[in-house]
Amino acid sequence: MEKPVQVGLLGCGTVGSGVLSILQANAERIAARAGALIEVRRVAVRDLKKYRTVSLDEALLTTDPWEVVSDPSVDIVIEVMGGVDPARDLIAAAVDNGKPVITANKEVLAKHGPELLSLAARRGVDLFFEGSVAGGIPIIKPLRESLAANRVQAIVGIINGTTNYVLTRMSREGMPFAEVLREAQALGYAEADPASDVEGYDAAFKIAILASLAFETPVRVEDVYCEGITRITPEDIRYGRELGYEIKLLAIAREHEGRLEVRVHPAFIPAAHPLAAVTDVFNAIFVRGDAVGELMFYGRGAGSLPTGSAVVADLVDAVRRLRFGGNGRLQPPAAQLPIKPIEETVSRYYVSLKVVDRPGVLAKIAAAFGENDVSIDSVIQKGRLEDPVDLVFVTHEVQEANIRRALAQISRLPVVRQVSNVIRVEAEV
Amino acid sequence: MEKPVQVGLLGCGTVGSGVLSILQANAERIAARAGALIEVRRVAVRDLKKYRTVSLDEALLTTDPWEVVSDPSVDIVIEVMGGVDPARDLIAAAVDNGKPVITANKEVLAKHGPELLSLAARRGVDLFFEGSVAGGIPIIKPLRESLAANRVQAIVGIINGTTNYVLTRMSREGMPFAEVLREAQALGYAEADPASDVEGYDAAFKIAILASLAFETPVRVEDVYCEGITRITPEDIRYGRELGYEIKLLAIAREHEGRLEVRVHPAFIPAAHPLAAVTDVFNAIFVRGDAVGELMFYGRGAGSLPTGSAVVADLVDAVRRLRFGGNGRLQPPAAQLPIKPIEETVSRYYVSLKVVDRPGVLAKIAAAFGENDVSIDSVIQKGRLEDPVDLVFVTHEVQEANIRRALAQISRLPVVRQVSNVIRVEAEV
Repeated sequence: MEKPVQVGLLGCGTVGSGVLSILQANAERIAARAGALIEVRRVAVRDLKKYRTVSLDEALLTTDPWEVVSDPSVDIVIEVMGGVDPARDLIAAAVDNGKPVITANKEVLAKHGPELLSLAARRGVDLFFEGSVAGGIPIIKPLRESLAANRVQAIVGIINGTTNYVLTRMSREGMPFAEVLREAQALGYAEADPASDVEGYDAAFKIAILASLAFETPVRVEDVYCEGITRITPEDIRYGRELGYEIKLLAIAREHEGRLEVRVHPAFIPAAHPLAAVTDVFNAIFVRGDAVGELMFYGRGAGSLPTGSAVVADLVDAVRRLRFGGNGRLQPPAAQLPIKPIEETVSRYYVSLKVVDRPGVLAKIAAAFGENDVSIDSVIQKGRLEDPVDLVFVTHEVQEANIRRALAQISRLPVVRQVSNVIRVEAEV
Repeated sequence: MEKPVQVGLLGCGTVGSGVLSILQANAERIAARAGALIEVRRVAVRDLKKYRTVSLDEALLTTDPWEVVSDPSVDIVIEVMGGVDPARDLIAAAVDNGKPVITANKEVLAKHGPELLSLAARRGVDLFFEGSVAGGIPIIKPLRESLAANRVQAIVGIINGTTNYVLTRMSREGMPFAEVLREAQALGYAEADPASDVEGYDAAFKIAILASLAFETPVRVEDVYCEGITRITPEDIRYGRELGYEIKLLAIAREHEGRLEVRVHPAFIPAAHPLAAVTDVFNAIFVRGDAVGELMFYGRGAGSLPTGSAVVADLVDAVRRLRFGGNGRLQPPAAQLPIKPIEETVSRYYVSLKVVDRPGVLAKIAAAFGENDVSIDSVIQKGRLEDPVDLVFVTHEVQEANIRRALAQISRLPVVRQVSNVIRVEAEV
């Protein structure tokens, strides 16, 4: 392999630490995929003394981010400091110095994305930003590349985890907004100053970025109509549910008769819609394209490692572009994990039996399970009007070989008329 | 723009027709994204006379696919004929002739993917296959590129639309398997010979492809443990639901202690799991990575246009690679859709009022809505124990300006104590 690619990191907060710990934990795998070793050359931080969760050579630290973007030994710059000032000027300077930039900074992109992208295009340098919207969920690359055949018709996103958490708890527990918000703040799911989340500003930044990309139109954050969730009451949620709806803070961008609607506001959606199942801090982005129809991308919209995952994916792309001028060919699979036989897999099992309705039957069957190390989680035994009666078990986790032995034994018991069905229960998918 | 890129198409059935109609409908958009015009040069079909839904110059047709893969004027080959023979040899020949190949053929990849990828790598030619798994859902590129920072831990997919449709209807309506299958066959959702779907073979092909990619290990279709859904009864589904589960045909690939489990079988999953909300013919793929956590990709897993969307996305990649050696830089947004002001957007609205409890109140409010062209879909009026009482409306679709005027007028009615809330209803997201 050639000499390592040198990365300069601007910011070492939540996302920066995630990037560093991923680069450490999966170094070998990432090097193989990038086609080059990746080394962190410089890390600009605000406070040299701050405690960090990730191990880091202190000699790499600097408080001067300008030093990083002008360092000739830095090949690629990652900007994860957030905010517009000085992030905007630092990104511009790095690009101007010919360095590809990866950013996860939604605010700078929502406010200055078009001008930064123009600069990057003029300089022939990459500017990547998968981490700026919806954390670890791949959405920028799918919109840019995977949907290239489509005219995008609409994007409907749940792209703020804090408000989704608040609405989920209000909805589940009938609690008022202010009370849930206080608890969310105590748990660290909401900021001390919650306005950016609960007023919808954070979602507005993100939908501006997505709309610009999907509709190939520069959308400024001022173009986004924005309403927050502070006025939603448990009564509204209850009435909505009576009508078949769930409430979500939606970020919507939609083309309608040659004009673009871009808005963030609470909305009721049908309870059966896939977005309605997106609860707690999860995010999801629903996309409608003229060829592909409906798509949804679901996952963790924030957090150190999920957002770090998106930033490092961009980094791998940037490295491949630097080294090979492209994102490279798919290699045939090389590593060789052995395949595990089905008898050795572990699962929970649903077992339904037809048994004669007589005292002691349950004990006999339970004993057969026990002798084969199969332990029982739940039992359903139904009414005594028919013979045979249904007897249904769900087991705890057990090896397939054991359940097979147990069932062979059970099927031979005279009280068992039939093993009606055995279905795996995947409780931990 | 340079001279057009010439495409040779092998097969013009469901997927091939979708590819052609997308290339026609979105020609300009696709050319802009690919950086070149795309022309279809040759189309190999089985029967020259067969009626086709897509308009096609008959001079392009041939019954000899070998002519297409050896035609020096064909730059890129798209193989959508299906099956192993002769698709495998045609793909190999095209690659050998230095032509990038795009295929949507799950069977040839599940059986011969590693050897075809090796050949392509040796020849320095691209082999793309986004359309081979889960139709229009982007999953191959996300696994290859967007998850490059991750060690993938598990993939759990609903990747056969027919069986998901059958299980959904069995589940909703308590109907037995055989009856739902007959109806699905009548509707064209299931084949006359349903074995490939209902026995799980189709899902086995697809999970072999996904597992090979995600775990960087060659997985042959014979390595996949496979059980179908033919034995599932409405009683099982009912008992499962009592225990909090929904039933799905899952395709699972999971690393466990250095070995790989790959299996397809019906399984109960918790009703609150996002996969449980995947109903009817929809597909979804749930992925767990060590950095990104849980992700899910949801959409249409089959069909002419969705699968065509995936194939054409690969084609755009292939064209960019041919022309620029890479997938190209993001350009700043250029087209200029005007932004629509919020007053002109159309939505349904939930309106909750506090009103005095007196005869004629509903009529007065309904009249105010009517005068502003707001028509009402549902009303909830609650018990007569308090004063004021809640009165809740959901409107039909109406322009925001109208609802605002109506509410201004309603808020001035003496019988109305308070407009408690107004929330948009996005019933058509």
